Amino acid sequence: MNILGAMQDWEMRTSLLIDHAAREHGGREIVTQWADGSRTRTTWAGVRRDALKMVQALRRLGIAPGDRVATLAMNHGRHLVAWYGATGAGGILHTINPRLFDDQLDYIANHAGDRVLIYDAAFQALVDRMRPHWKTIEHYICFDSGEHALHFEDWIGAEDGDAEWAQGSERDPCMLCYTSGTTGHPKGVLFEHRSNMLHTYAAIMPQCLDLDARAAVLPVVPMFHANNWGFPWAAAAVGAKLVYCANNDAATLCRLMHAEGVNYLAGVPTVWLALLQHIEETGQAMPPLTRALTGGSAMPRAIIERLMRHGIRVAHAWGMTETSPIATIAFEPADYDDRDLDGQVAVKALQGKALFGIELRTVDLDDPARVLPRDGKSAGALQVRGLWVIRRYFKAEQDTADTDQWFDTGDVAMLHPDGTLQLTDRTKDVIKSGGEWISSVELENCAVAHPAVAEAAAIGIPHPKWDERPILVVVKKPGMDVTVEELRSLLAAGVAKWWLPDAIEFVDDIPHTGTGKISKKDLRERFGDYRLDV
Amino acid sequence: MNILGAMQDWEMRTSLLIDHAAREHGGREIVTQWADGSRTRTTWAGVRRDALKMVQALRRLGIAPGDRVATLAMNHGRHLVAWYGATGAGGILHTINPRLFDDQLDYIANHAGDRVLIYDAAFQALVDRMRPHWKTIEHYICFDSGEHALHFEDWIGAEDGDAEWAQGSERDPCMLCYTSGTTGHPKGVLFEHRSNMLHTYAAIMPQCLDLDARAAVLPVVPMFHANNWGFPWAAAAVGAKLVYCANNDAATLCRLMHAEGVNYLAGVPTVWLALLQHIEETGQAMPPLTRALTGGSAMPRAIIERLMRHGIRVAHAWGMTETSPIATIAFEPADYDDRDLDGQVAVKALQGKALFGIELRTVDLDDPARVLPRDGKSAGALQVRGLWVIRRYFKAEQDTADTDQWFDTGDVAMLHPDGTLQLTDRTKDVIKSGGEWISSVELENCAVAHPAVAEAAAIGIPHPKWDERPILVVVKKPGMDVTVEELRSLLAAGVAKWWLPDAIEFVDDIPHTGTGKISKKDLRERFGDYRLDV
Repeated sequence: MNILGAMQDWEMRTSLLIDHAAREHGGREIVTQWADGSRTRTTWAGVRRDALKMVQALRRLGIAPGDRVATLAMNHGRHLVAWYGATGAGGILHTINPRLFDDQLDYIANHAGDRVLIYDAAFQALVDRMRPHWKTIEHYICFDSGEHALHFEDWIGAEDGDAEWAQGSERDPCMLCYTSGTTGHPKGVLFEHRSNMLHTYAAIMPQCLDLDARAAVLPVVPMFHANNWGFPWAAAAVGAKLVYCANNDAATLCRLMHAEGVNYLAGVPTVWLALLQHIEETGQAMPPLTRALTGGSAMPRAIIERLMRHGIRVAHAWGMTETSPIATIAFEPADYDDRDLDGQVAVKALQGKALFGIELRTVDLDDPARVLPRDGKSAGALQVRGLWVIRRYFKAEQDTADTDQWFDTGDVAMLHPDGTLQLTDRTKDVIKSGGEWISSVELENCAVAHPAVAEAAAIGIPHPKWDERPILVVVKKPGMDVTVEELRSLLAAGVAKWWLPDAIEFVDDIPHTGTGKISKKDLRERFGDYRLDV
Repeated sequence: MNILGAMQDWEMRTSLLIDHAAREHGGREIVTQWADGSRTRTTWAGVRRDALKMVQALRRLGIAPGDRVATLAMNHGRHLVAWYGATGAGGILHTINPRLFDDQLDYIANHAGDRVLIYDAAFQALVDRMRPHWKTIEHYICFDSGEHALHFEDWIGAEDGDAEWAQGSERDPCMLCYTSGTTGHPKGVLFEHRSNMLHTYAAIMPQCLDLDARAAVLPVVPMFHANNWGFPWAAAAVGAKLVYCANNDAATLCRLMHAEGVNYLAGVPTVWLALLQHIEETGQAMPPLTRALTGGSAMPRAIIERLMRHGIRVAHAWGMTETSPIATIAFEPADYDDRDLDGQVAVKALQGKALFGIELRTVDLDDPARVLPRDGKSAGALQVRGLWVIRRYFKAEQDTADTDQWFDTGDVAMLHPDGTLQLTDRTKDVIKSGGEWISSVELENCAVAHPAVAEAAAIGIPHPKWDERPILVVVKKPGMDVTVEELRSLLAAGVAKWWLPDAIEFVDDIPHTGTGKISKKDLRERFGDYRLDV
C-alpha cells in the first residue's frame, strides 16, 4: 500500500528495555543475597552501565552479533547484567541449566556453538569436568571468583561503558534455551528480540503478572529456566525492584522478603508449600506478599486457598520454554468478585485462559485432524500458536509448528466453554485402555492427597485384553505408612471405576529427569518386565 | 543473520484483537444507551459477527484495502462494529469530529478521500449541508435511521458473515484521525495496525489503564477523538465490558453506571467535576467506580483529591492524537503507599512518566538544539518519540518527526529528575517578557481557582519595553462577581511578581475551537488593538 504518512520505525530490541529502565527508574534497586548471606545492591542504571561495559568487553573478545554467549549460573545481579550485555551486543544469550546430566551438558554447549561461558564459582567442578568436551568455548569467565578464570567484575571493569548497543532487526534471535525432553537430545528454543518484547508487554498485564513500579519481585524460578518466566525483561519495563537469593529454603526466603519488602514471589508449587509450612510451623509473620505467581506444574487447590486466606492474589500460569514461556494464566473473570472463596479458588486451580497474542486448541489424540469442542469434557492433544510461540527449534531442518503455526505442546488437556484450560496429562504418559484414555496425572493427584504419600506415578503396563492398564507406583513419606487398600478406596472416590490401577506398588524412590520432573521413561523401563494378573 | 530456528511470524492486526475477544470473552457485553434512554446490548462475539458482515458489505461496494471509510458518530455499539469492520476489511477508518467547523469538515473529508460515510441520524442536517462539498464520498449509510440513507443494520444485515479478514502487513495503516490546530488546515494522523496493537499492550498495563476482564468501562471521551484513548482495542484484549452513553450529563451517567455496574469511567476533567458536583448536590451514592481515567487537559488537584477520598484510583494521562494517544501517565511510584494523601495527590496531579515504548525530552525554546536537563525547573519545548508516535502526517511531503524521530508536541513542559512530566503551556501561547518566558496556563490555573471565575485566558500583548506582557481575560460565572483587585491578589499568591498580568479584562465569552479548547488565536485577534499603559 502506497500511502504517505505513517508512524515511526522502531526495532523492538532488549536494549530499549534497559534504556527505559535506566532512564525512568534508574534508582530502583536490584538486590542479591549470596550463598554466604551477604547482600549486594545495584540499580537499573547500574545494570545498564555494566551491560554496556560487557558489550565493549565482548567486542574486545571478537564476539559478533549472532554469536552465542553462555551462562551457567544461579540468580543474581551479575547474571542480570549478562542478560542485557549479551543481547545488547547482538549476541545470543544461552542460559545453561547446571542440573542437566553430563551428556546433555556436553551436547547443548557444542550444539549451541557457545563461544563464551560465564559461570558461577559454585559450578567450578562441573566446568572442570566438562571443559575437555566443550569444543567451541574459547573464553571462560567466572561471575564471582578470579581463582580459576577471569573474574566478571575485572573483565567488564576494564571498560568505560562508552558504547552503543548493537543495532539490528527485531526479528534477530537474542536468547537460546534448551528443553530437556525425556527422549532424544535437548532441543534449543531461540527467542527473538521481538518475541521477548511482545511477551514482556503481555506479561505485565493486570490479568497476567500484574507488575508495576511498586512491585518488589523475588523470582525463585532459576534464570536458566524458561526465560526466567520473563521477569528480567518485565521488571525493567515497569521499574520493579528485583531481589535474588542464592538459597531457596523457606527460612532464608522469609527473612529476605521481610528485609527487602518483597511483595511478589514467583516459584513452582513446592516453593509455596514450603513457605506456608515454615510460616505455620514457626508462627512467623507472613512476608508482605500481595502477589503469588506459580507455574511449572499444577498448583494444588489447597495451597491456593491457604495463600488466598493470607490475602495474597494467586496467579497460576501455564506455558513452556517454547511459549516464552507464559501462554495462559488463571485470572479473575468478570464475575470473580461475586464468587465465594471456593468459587474463587476453583478459578485459580485451573491453568487459566489464553493471553491476548496466544491461541489454543485441542485435537483428538488418535486423529489429530479432528479439532475437539470446548466442552470441558473432551480431552485431547493441546496445541498453541501465537506471537511468542516457537516455529522451529535451533538448527532443526524443519518447522516444529505446522503450516497453520500450531505447535503441539505434548500436553493432554481439555478446554472449557469459556476458554479455560485444564491440563490432564502429558501425551506420552496417558494410558490407553480398551480404546479409551486414562489420565496418569489424575491418578497421581488423587494418590498424593494421602498424607503418607510422598510421591506417586502412574504408568501403563501392556495388557492382553485392554491393550494397557494403569499401575500406580508410590513412595511413602519417611516414618509413615499407608496400605494398598487405603489408597484404592481413596482413588475410588476420585476417578471412574475403570481408571482404578490394576496394581499399586510401593518403592523406595522414583527416577527423575535433569529438571526434577518424574521420568516416566525410566520408570517404564524399570517396570518393563512387570506382568499384570489377567 | 542466518540462523535456523525462530519464533512464529504473525502480523499484528486489529483482526487478532476481535478474534481474541470473541473467542475468549465472547459473552462479555457491549451496552449502548441511546439518546431516548433506551438501551441495546451486544457482545464481543456479536461485534465480531457484525464486523465480518460489514467486511462483506464493504467488499460488495468495491471498497479495497487502503480505502478510507469515514464515520461521523457518537459512541455506540454500532460505531464499535464499524471500527473492526473497516479495519478488518483492510480499510482505513476515518473518525470525523462532528464538532469541527464546516470549512474543516469540507477539507478533511476531501483530503482523506473518504469513499464511504457512516453517520448518526443526529448529524443529518450536517450531512445535508456538507454533501455538495464532499466530492469523494460515494456511499452514505446511516447508523440509526433508514429515512435518508441506507440503514447500517440493513446494510450489514444483507450479509451472512462468512468472510475472512483482510490479510496484510502490520505496518499497513488502519485509522485516520485529524487534529485541528488553531492555525492552518487540520492534519491527518495515520495509525497503523502495529502501532495500535503496541499501544493496546502498553495501555493495558497496571500503571496505565489497568484493564482486566472485570473492568466495565464507560468512555465519555468521544470515539472520534484521538483513537478513543485506545479503549475499543484495549477492552477487546482483556474482555472488558464497554458501556456507551449518548448523553453525557452527570445525572444520566450516574444512573447508567449504577444500572450497568460501571467501575471505570474515562473522561476529561470537566466530566469528573460535573459528576462530583452531582453526587454532592443530590446526596446520591457514588457509582461503583474503582478507576478514573482523565486526560485531554490537566486535572485540577482538588478533583483528584475528591475522587481519591471516594476510594477511586485516579489515572492522569497525557498524550495527543499524534501519540495514539497515551504517552505518559501519572502512576504510583515505588514509595507511593508510604505517602500521605497529599503526597499521593501530588503524584497524580502531574502528567506522569513515559510508558515503556515512549521517550521524552525537552529542548530550549530559543535554541532547540540544546537539550534541557531533567531538573524540574527548566521549561522547554516537549518532544516525544517511540513505538506509537507519528513520523509523517497523511499526504504530507516530509516527515514531521526529525531524523532522530523526535516529534515536537507544541507543548511547553519541564521534566523532573525522576522523569515526571509537568506541562506548563502550549509553545505558541507562552508569553515572552524581557527575554523570559511566562506560562499562560499557570496564570489561568490561578485565576480559575476563584469560585466566581468560569473561564480565564492569558495572552501576550505587545509592549515597547518588555516585548510582550500578559493580560488576563476572564469570564465570570452567572450571577457571581469578582473584582480585578481580588484576582490580582489571588495571582500574586501563586506566581512570580513579574508574571502578574498588566491588565485583567472581564468579557462575556471567550472564543473556542472546534474541539472545545480556548482559541488563543481568535482571542489575540480580538485584542489586536489593545494597548497597555506604559
